[in-house]
Amino acid sequence: MRMVDIITKKRDGFALNPEEIRFFIEGYVSGSILDYQASALTMAIYFRDMTDLEIAELTRAMVNSGDTVDLSAIDGIKVDKHSTGGVGDTTTLVLAPLVASIGVPVAKMSGRGLGFTGGTIDKLESIPGFSVEMSSDQFVKRVNRDHIAVIGQTGDLVPADKKLYALRDVSGSVESIPLIASSIMSKKIAAGADAIVLEVTCGDGAFMKNEKDAIRLAETMVQIGRHVGRKTSAVITDMSQPLGFAIGNALEVKEAIDTLQGKGPSDLEELVYELGSRMVTLAGKAPNLDDARKQLEQALKQGLAFAKFKQFIENQGGDPSVADHPEQLPQADFQIELPAKVSGVVAALKADQIGLAAMLLGAGRSTKDDTINYGTGIVLHKKVGDSVVKGESLLTIHSDSKQVDQVVRKLYQNITIAERADRPKLIHQIIN
Amino acid sequence: MRMVDIITKKRDGFALNPEEIRFFIEGYVSGSILDYQASALTMAIYFRDMTDLEIAELTRAMVNSGDTVDLSAIDGIKVDKHSTGGVGDTTTLVLAPLVASIGVPVAKMSGRGLGFTGGTIDKLESIPGFSVEMSSDQFVKRVNRDHIAVIGQTGDLVPADKKLYALRDVSGSVESIPLIASSIMSKKIAAGADAIVLEVTCGDGAFMKNEKDAIRLAETMVQIGRHVGRKTSAVITDMSQPLGFAIGNALEVKEAIDTLQGKGPSDLEELVYELGSRMVTLAGKAPNLDDARKQLEQALKQGLAFAKFKQFIENQGGDPSVADHPEQLPQADFQIELPAKVSGVVAALKADQIGLAAMLLGAGRSTKDDTINYGTGIVLHKKVGDSVVKGESLLTIHSDSKQVDQVVRKLYQNITIAERADRPKLIHQIIN
Repeated sequence: MRMVDIITKKRDGFALNPEEIRFFIEGYVSGSILDYQASALTMAIYFRDMTDLEIAELTRAMVNSGDTVDLSAIDGIKVDKHSTGGVGDTTTLVLAPLVASIGVPVAKMSGRGLGFTGGTIDKLESIPGFSVEMSSDQFVKRVNRDHIAVIGQTGDLVPADKKLYALRDVSGSVESIPLIASSIMSKKIAAGADAIVLEVTCGDGAFMKNEKDAIRLAETMVQIGRHVGRKTSAVITDMSQPLGFAIGNALEVKEAIDTLQGKGPSDLEELVYELGSRMVTLAGKAPNLDDARKQLEQALKQGLAFAKFKQFIENQGGDPSVADHPEQLPQADFQIELPAKVSGVVAALKADQIGLAAMLLGAGRSTKDDTINYGTGIVLHKKVGDSVVKGESLLTIHSDSKQVDQVVRKLYQNITIAERADRPKLIHQIIN
Repeated sequence: MRMVDIITKKRDGFALNPEEIRFFIEGYVSGSILDYQASALTMAIYFRDMTDLEIAELTRAMVNSGDTVDLSAIDGIKVDKHSTGGVGDTTTLVLAPLVASIGVPVAKMSGRGLGFTGGTIDKLESIPGFSVEMSSDQFVKRVNRDHIAVIGQTGDLVPADKKLYALRDVSGSVESIPLIASSIMSKKIAAGADAIVLEVTCGDGAFMKNEKDAIRLAETMVQIGRHVGRKTSAVITDMSQPLGFAIGNALEVKEAIDTLQGKGPSDLEELVYELGSRMVTLAGKAPNLDDARKQLEQALKQGLAFAKFKQFIENQGGDPSVADHPEQLPQADFQIELPAKVSGVVAALKADQIGLAAMLLGAGRSTKDDTINYGTGIVLHKKVGDSVVKGESLLTIHSDSKQVDQVVRKLYQNITIAERADRPKLIHQIIN
């Protein structure tokens, strides 16, 4: 088998067979196939797409390229949740203790990330003492006992994805649905998930800018799940404006605490129920979505979810008193209000640009070596569809520097106030 | 400027500007842009094509990537001819002395090649003593005095093409019209041609399998010529069957000698007049094609072309007596006839497969290190449209081995005899 023939076959619009796909992934990871052939193939895939069967085989080959996590020692059906990311995405911080509080095992392996704010681990590490360092043994024991634990990345999971993603990033084939889908799904499968709930965001602040691409990505990932025997469900959500109010690490932890106490932003709460009821159902803890949602609402109302959060923090070495005293979380030195220049209705809060503003404040990393400033970020007071009076604060900037001219400029440029505007629909579609 | 942005721009269907094209070629040749980005870009070009302006700029950048030949010391307009190649392509051997015999300067730089038979230099080197080694000074003097000289490749011409072609060959983007056109034209321009006559072959034995692609390639190259100020004219020719009768190095030299004496195959002679009259006209030696053709017919009839051939051979150290005694050329040990199995009309002589049969006999190289067996090859006695009687010889195999079973099998498999068949049209189209 010759790699050039595989490239030419895909280039000419034919589907690759499983043997050819394995030949490519194995050869690329082992180094017998070099970058210049891999980048030509990924570009050809960008143009020619792949069939569901090809994408499933690609995902399998990527999973098999490295270590896989064995969660069989953990009782029950392990359901993982993945979001394609957004701005102010506090979902996991609420969702994990909430579903764990009704007995769904949350065995999460999580990583750090580049982006507008940190990844889930970064956010949790803004809690004093919190750590994801533990042995695999401890991890399993904790999930079996308390149904929740988060561990840092262990082993060499999906090396094919690391190598391929880095290559696509510099050779112009990042935006390929089959390659994005297999990248995401291979990591979830290698991390040991039995079932997967996906949040596919769409809009300015998301990787998928429009609904059509988001639906295609969701459908592709659900198909992969079907082919590899992992039940997968996807929710397409709006990311044209940030989710919730808070954007920033400690700020989002505080928002998660509020939400676990029933005082959170309505969009965040709604999304948590949407995703959570699917996780509960896939985990076999509820006969249907309605029942699952009722269980989750009960657990929140009765304080079970909030108590689970505190237990979780304590288990991971963190100080659980932050849950009752969020003012103990890292705080920025300055709080600066952004007053509305006119009266009207907020018509746009461009999520990506507001995310970039938070990053300028130190809330996110642009390169791997950047350090995160936990206390900084932005807290919105208005969302799209809200009325505002001239002079009223649109948001609060949490900054360690008084000098925020650049941030203020960026924010004003990306907030539109109009005579009228509708609230965007949060949940666009469900793909099963 | 970042290469990934250039790749993405082309991938998304936009035209690259001259600065971006130069950035790519200069960076790739200098090593600051690596193979994996170049192969991604060439694959994107394969899918998205290029505008005439982009292709012209690419050609210019490639010419500027290395040495260029300065032919200004040679009097007159230097017209070069290029063929996209075929089987039994004896054209240059006849054309060069013919146009030189009426004063058109033929200052040819030529290389060896992979393929069914050797390149022009290989064919000429089958003449005892013939050599392309000479100083640039000698080269210029000879062309000014006798209007013809062939020199081997000197200097580092178009290194961008060498690097890019080797990469495309292993990464699946050979078959891209803008990349093929710029590759051919950059080499002709770097070799100092003022004007260029192109023979674009099409059919089984050619790189372009169908007429549509051949026309597009020809049009693209003529446009490049227009943009870079080199008058270019293209003739689309049939290569569904071999050209002329002879396939093999010394066998083609003998055929060239026959043709220069007015005893050549009619298709080869016709093609030589077609291409030659365009060269003469572009060189300013005739007011129009009709006049040019008449001059060439005269030169052939009066023996001027034949005499020029002998002078040319002698100038290059070869033994000119081969022209009168072609039996002095290298000869294969065995001549084996291939009898027709049925009576009828020859309907197909698959050029590429007959070329491969000649290669099996040692007439061509499949790798750079292969040596050529000058005397071997095939001489056709019948061409498409000719009647044949069962038992009559279709062709003669010239072999150094008695064992030709594999060659015979291949030949029978690729020669079709039917009840009736039309002669294919030799000249498909002219592109100016």
